Amino acid sequence: MLPLAVLEEVQAEIVDYGSAGMSIIEMSHRSPPYEAVHRGAIALLRDLLAVPDDFEVLFIQGGATMQFGMLPLNLLTGSSAGAYVDTGAWASKAFEDAAHHGDVYEAWSGRDIGYTRMPQAAELSLRRDTRYVHLTSNETIGGIQYKEWPDVAEPLVADMSSDLLSRRVPWERFDVVYGGVQKNVAPAGLALVFIRRSALEHTPRDLASYFRYDVHASKDSMYNTPPVFPIYVMEKVLRWIQDRGGLPAMEAAADARAGLLYQTIDESDGFYTSPVDGASRSNMNVVFRLSDHDLEPQFVAVASGRGMVGLKGHRNVGGCRASIYNAMPMAGVEALCEFMADFQESVG
Amino acid sequence: MLPLAVLEEVQAEIVDYGSAGMSIIEMSHRSPPYEAVHRGAIALLRDLLAVPDDFEVLFIQGGATMQFGMLPLNLLTGSSAGAYVDTGAWASKAFEDAAHHGDVYEAWSGRDIGYTRMPQAAELSLRRDTRYVHLTSNETIGGIQYKEWPDVAEPLVADMSSDLLSRRVPWERFDVVYGGVQKNVAPAGLALVFIRRSALEHTPRDLASYFRYDVHASKDSMYNTPPVFPIYVMEKVLRWIQDRGGLPAMEAAADARAGLLYQTIDESDGFYTSPVDGASRSNMNVVFRLSDHDLEPQFVAVASGRGMVGLKGHRNVGGCRASIYNAMPMAGVEALCEFMADFQESVG
Repeated sequence: MLPLAVLEEVQAEIVDYGSAGMSIIEMSHRSPPYEAVHRGAIALLRDLLAVPDDFEVLFIQGGATMQFGMLPLNLLTGSSAGAYVDTGAWASKAFEDAAHHGDVYEAWSGRDIGYTRMPQAAELSLRRDTRYVHLTSNETIGGIQYKEWPDVAEPLVADMSSDLLSRRVPWERFDVVYGGVQKNVAPAGLALVFIRRSALEHTPRDLASYFRYDVHASKDSMYNTPPVFPIYVMEKVLRWIQDRGGLPAMEAAADARAGLLYQTIDESDGFYTSPVDGASRSNMNVVFRLSDHDLEPQFVAVASGRGMVGLKGHRNVGGCRASIYNAMPMAGVEALCEFMADFQESVG
Repeated sequence: MLPLAVLEEVQAEIVDYGSAGMSIIEMSHRSPPYEAVHRGAIALLRDLLAVPDDFEVLFIQGGATMQFGMLPLNLLTGSSAGAYVDTGAWASKAFEDAAHHGDVYEAWSGRDIGYTRMPQAAELSLRRDTRYVHLTSNETIGGIQYKEWPDVAEPLVADMSSDLLSRRVPWERFDVVYGGVQKNVAPAGLALVFIRRSALEHTPRDLASYFRYDVHASKDSMYNTPPVFPIYVMEKVLRWIQDRGGLPAMEAAADARAGLLYQTIDESDGFYTSPVDGASRSNMNVVFRLSDHDLEPQFVAVASGRGMVGLKGHRNVGGCRASIYNAMPMAGVEALCEFMADFQESVG
């Protein structure tokens, strides 16, 4: 979901950008208008997320999935190992892909508890040769999210695909933050990679150019033609976020949206239930069940008829799920909560 | 450059696609409207290019540059080697990147002749363990293009980034054809990979998912979120090509555009000259010099003032270059040729 104002701006500009007589998606990535957009997007990301000067901001294609491979290729050199924290479907994919390109191990798994919470730092089994601890900030299927980052000595690496730009980042704890943009930030086709400069000093040179973080960094993410359209739309979304108060406002809005939904669930006298541990409840994906599971298909169908689509839980876990990313207005959540109360009354 | 009709269609649909109440770039890639576009684009590519049934059509992010690494990772297994034909800047990049991921060697180089022509089959030095012969179909900087594919026994692999969909492909000669889409087909952010199914049987499994052709193939290029916007625009461009007569018409139009330009050069009594061997003259990038090199900056500047931009040759070779991809109308080339005659007269 993208802000309507952003889509309307795209619509106004898509045929003729800035009276240039051509579309931004036709321009060379070396042209001044595109370069201004590209550098503007980087500057806005640095500003909004308070990215320190000793981090690079990279635009790389292939989504987070591509990063599952690039990360160990670049960082697991010598005899160091990557610690992976298994918190659900996305963490598992990151781990399985990384295993082909470096020495990785599972530092904790929530498999046996049905992925209903994130771990505490004390629960992680970390080896001494650990180069980084890989976390999945928010699991979209299980609906769990780190509210506190585990307090470990090793540098953290986080896949923030599903909560990027909805929360502030304590950079001093991280070597890398990465994420696909398509949930909160821009159309699909782009991943953001924030990487500490010192981490680039030891990356291997014996890789094809596109796989090398240092190559992307040295060319300001224009080593080859960048994905112009997602970057162009992202720059607008970032300005939209800035106009609405930046990250503190996004955080507060996410807290308010999720808070209202969890409150509706908790105050339903058990009609709706959350399977997720209170301390790990996601602000982005609110997973819930109807205590009478058989009513769930009806709940999803009636909601869909009222324009509230996509409430069916992921096929791996069943139940219901409300995904409430940055562009979801509070009114949308209020409408859903009203519907939930109505539905409860109608079948009660 | 994209067809204006395509841009106007995008403009009409970008806020509300098919009365769905949302943009195609907001939809899940699992939604029926997007799936229809995705599968429609594959079907149109198969139809227009007459892709045989035993080839897969893949959509992969990262452009041709990403393929420079993926190709040897997937194909140079066991003791086989990749033969690379060095015909200029793009071929060199493909070779250098591949060298990190497989046994590759240079089968021929045009370095000493200034990259002014493509080689004949008999000139290639091929080893017996050759898995494929890598060609760069068209070199955008030197302005050379294979008119005949070298007749060798080994399977060909071609980077067709700059002439994709401007010419028919004799598939029986190829194991892989790949290319970034941004020259002739769609906005940046996507590469097309056409790969013979039998070539997928021996690709390694010990790679992260995104690096594996077989993973993309098994999921119809939806293993992870595809780059929705470039694919959506490409589907429209493909229909535009179909409406205009398909590949034979694109080929004929490319021949006519380039023919008129080379004729103007050849009939200028030496005022304009082509540094390129007659048999290798590119239909996409017409490189030329003014015999008085000192006049070239003035030529480029005056042309630019009349709306004909981008005529400066690449900084590596100097001179002038007219890039005339599929969406360039014949009228644009006629205007350029008229200008060339006028300029010659004005300074003559």
